[in-house]
Amino acid sequence: MENGGSTQTTRMENGVKSHRERVLTTNTMNPNVKKVEYAVRGPIVQRALQIEKELKAGVSKPFSEVIKANIGDAHAMGQRPITFLRQVMALCMYPELLNDNKFPEDAKNRARRILQSCGGGSIGAYSASQGLECVRTDVARYIERRDGGIASDPDNIYLSTGASDAIVTMLKLLVSGEGSSRTGVMISIPQYPLYSAALADLGAVQIGYFLNEERCWSLDLSELRRALSAARGHCQPRALCIINPGNPTGQVQSRQCIEDVIRFAAEEHLFLMADEVYQDNVYAEGCEFHSFKKVLFEMGPEYSSTVELASFHSTSKCYMGECGFRGGYMEVVNLDPEVKAQLTKLVSVRLCPPVPGQALLDLVVNPPEPGEPSYATFSKERSATLDELALKARLTEQALNAVPGICCNPVQGAMYSFPRITLPPGAIAEAQEKGLAPDMLYCMKLLDETGICLVPGSGFGQRDGTFHFRMTILPPTEKLKVVLAKVKEFHQSFTERYS
Amino acid sequence: MENGGSTQTTRMENGVKSHRERVLTTNTMNPNVKKVEYAVRGPIVQRALQIEKELKAGVSKPFSEVIKANIGDAHAMGQRPITFLRQVMALCMYPELLNDNKFPEDAKNRARRILQSCGGGSIGAYSASQGLECVRTDVARYIERRDGGIASDPDNIYLSTGASDAIVTMLKLLVSGEGSSRTGVMISIPQYPLYSAALADLGAVQIGYFLNEERCWSLDLSELRRALSAARGHCQPRALCIINPGNPTGQVQSRQCIEDVIRFAAEEHLFLMADEVYQDNVYAEGCEFHSFKKVLFEMGPEYSSTVELASFHSTSKCYMGECGFRGGYMEVVNLDPEVKAQLTKLVSVRLCPPVPGQALLDLVVNPPEPGEPSYATFSKERSATLDELALKARLTEQALNAVPGICCNPVQGAMYSFPRITLPPGAIAEAQEKGLAPDMLYCMKLLDETGICLVPGSGFGQRDGTFHFRMTILPPTEKLKVVLAKVKEFHQSFTERYS
Repeated sequence: MENGGSTQTTRMENGVKSHRERVLTTNTMNPNVKKVEYAVRGPIVQRALQIEKELKAGVSKPFSEVIKANIGDAHAMGQRPITFLRQVMALCMYPELLNDNKFPEDAKNRARRILQSCGGGSIGAYSASQGLECVRTDVARYIERRDGGIASDPDNIYLSTGASDAIVTMLKLLVSGEGSSRTGVMISIPQYPLYSAALADLGAVQIGYFLNEERCWSLDLSELRRALSAARGHCQPRALCIINPGNPTGQVQSRQCIEDVIRFAAEEHLFLMADEVYQDNVYAEGCEFHSFKKVLFEMGPEYSSTVELASFHSTSKCYMGECGFRGGYMEVVNLDPEVKAQLTKLVSVRLCPPVPGQALLDLVVNPPEPGEPSYATFSKERSATLDELALKARLTEQALNAVPGICCNPVQGAMYSFPRITLPPGAIAEAQEKGLAPDMLYCMKLLDETGICLVPGSGFGQRDGTFHFRMTILPPTEKLKVVLAKVKEFHQSFTERYS
Repeated sequence: MENGGSTQTTRMENGVKSHRERVLTTNTMNPNVKKVEYAVRGPIVQRALQIEKELKAGVSKPFSEVIKANIGDAHAMGQRPITFLRQVMALCMYPELLNDNKFPEDAKNRARRILQSCGGGSIGAYSASQGLECVRTDVARYIERRDGGIASDPDNIYLSTGASDAIVTMLKLLVSGEGSSRTGVMISIPQYPLYSAALADLGAVQIGYFLNEERCWSLDLSELRRALSAARGHCQPRALCIINPGNPTGQVQSRQCIEDVIRFAAEEHLFLMADEVYQDNVYAEGCEFHSFKKVLFEMGPEYSSTVELASFHSTSKCYMGECGFRGGYMEVVNLDPEVKAQLTKLVSVRLCPPVPGQALLDLVVNPPEPGEPSYATFSKERSATLDELALKARLTEQALNAVPGICCNPVQGAMYSFPRITLPPGAIAEAQEKGLAPDMLYCMKLLDETGICLVPGSGFGQRDGTFHFRMTILPPTEKLKVVLAKVKEFHQSFTERYS
């Protein structure tokens, strides 16, 4: 049905064979889309899928399965769903089960409350575009508890299709101007490639600021200033994005750092975007999650009444890892009321975020409380998941640092290690010949030889001449140990081969 | 926390009070977003929500409830979910229920098959960005059955977050150029405002072609030619969008018309986008749904091997009406392989469509078959829903045509009537004074006086000097009769008042 190229030879209506160019080709398509890159699901994952198919077809390989440590997909790595969340979801899907005495009363109550908030009592009805009112109320209460009582208004909560959706929507609002007045957006390097992809798609200017690898991927004010000053003149810097806990770098920002960033944003007149989807994923001793909202308000009204902030959360990470539901929310602070009306209008075009994801989010922000029948099981499952993640974070750091030529910062939070790897000159030369980033060559070879799928550091951005990979800490502990041992063995053999 | 305007007065760090402009204001925001309009959830719906709140607060009104006939939201209007769909969804959510003997075996088999296709056997894992493989396979088989055996390749199926998502993605790929080479996209007038909103957002040029109201909203080739010729010179026309069955106009295109449109697209070198989300919603005698794909292939290889087509479907309409799940798919035909790679990359940035929506779509395209335990109930529920919709389509047409000053085409399909209304000069004058479209004034007054929420025709586009409203046929039959009687009464009193 399809030809290999962009032209088609065919017999037209008039009977004359003609050579017809397609309407939509890579020459005529949206040029911004061509610039989009998304390493987390890029060529390495395409190759991994192909290898999986080959394994299924019986092709012999030096390994029996592909281990996807490329993406923060907890359930795919064997993490079990939290019972309470799924019980309530089943009740919402098929309310006949409310008559079933197998389900605990608190699960039934949550389901009834969610369904009452749905049109016609069905999770199959559209919700308001901003999200179900009861969920937005619960999100606001959750934020208030999290932030020590600082007020949160359900009207400032926008539910979304995962955090990605809300981040892209907020960036879209911020983009304007042409040439040197085009909106510039500051993002960390390394970054989560959603940001670079969205900025390319929107035709905005990416302003990279480097995280300090030597100081555990911390954020230096001087580097923010350098990056901003280098950007002025060729764009109009208007927003600053922070991911905390960090993706792909796994650091947890200190309270002082967050204060500094807020002060910087106020001074430099930047809109703050705080990606806080890993807010429960903090493992290291002495580290604590501080929300930008909380710090902003603790800094007093000269900041809390002026600095514009959007912060993002998701059902995909933390202890629940429910990526498939595409649940999430955004809280906006100090947003211009007229812009807020524009935002509400914009999200209405897509009608509403998936309602099952909204319902799931409701349970995440309104979990069983002490005294409720599901509390004990819920707490046990939640702690077990987070405790195991903390264990795997330490295990990963230690094992990687035991490999000569690999240097890994502590995995303070999130779900990733982002170690620096020393590559021999021979490997760098071969990669250059092949037109590949050297760490892409490394990861491709690792995949082909061991079945382990990682993402090369070049997909996230890194200082020139340095090389990294991102590896999730999500495989089950025993499998993670095997992965780490195989990485060690591969790194040694790779280094020898190319030295 | 928020001021009313875009500036904020505050004490800055240096102690000096300063007058600070926000970063993001309606002056600095994305100008394309400002141009976006979406009538289906526009000011009329904002007003309806406000009235609902007033009613709840005990404010006395001449009615006791707001009836939302503005949006195709079947469950919100009381339609019951299909049992089989929800049973399988509950099983997917909480697989412990697979041990429950209350669920029929075919429901369990469907759930097992879907879960096996999910990472880690959990619906909470991300799927491939294009969608779960088993669902894409089932969609392709569904299309083959629907189209009399014409082949469909699962690799050409992209699952999506409702049809809206896929439509916007396809439009995004098509948009390029500046000034008079900017992409132009042909859309029907009246249209579903997702199209105009997406084109505004993307900065593309909207090329409206009028449907022929006198001939039951049919599509005239001469009008397509007129619109295209008027557009050439100030943009580069590259795509033609058709909604069949029609939204908001409820017509069903004849096979001949579809053939003409395909020939026109081939001659004029246009990419075809066929929005077919109402493909099961065909009610009128002599009308039948013909997919663009089927007609294209029946026209022979000179068309089927050249004309580029994307067609769209959704879980939100038809007999299931599961809007909240945001399930849908797109099939692409003759797409340039390199563009296809770009499309796959682009959708990967959002990771994946909601997996519960994908699972639900799987059941829609792979429903119980004769001999399976759920078949009888499923068929009964499905037919009952579609039969009632057919009844309500006729009822609506008849009742509206019985009102002097209202003229309604047959509701051949979809879920809407789009009658023409005669408005007295006094109403038109008052609307102009108030800066409102006359049919917006009409619908606002209808809402305030009766609680019935409709969408004015101006929100969809209509010929100058004509006025319409869109009303869904979804309220339960008895309520629909009341709605129609109230509209009649209102129309008469409105006409008298302003004459």
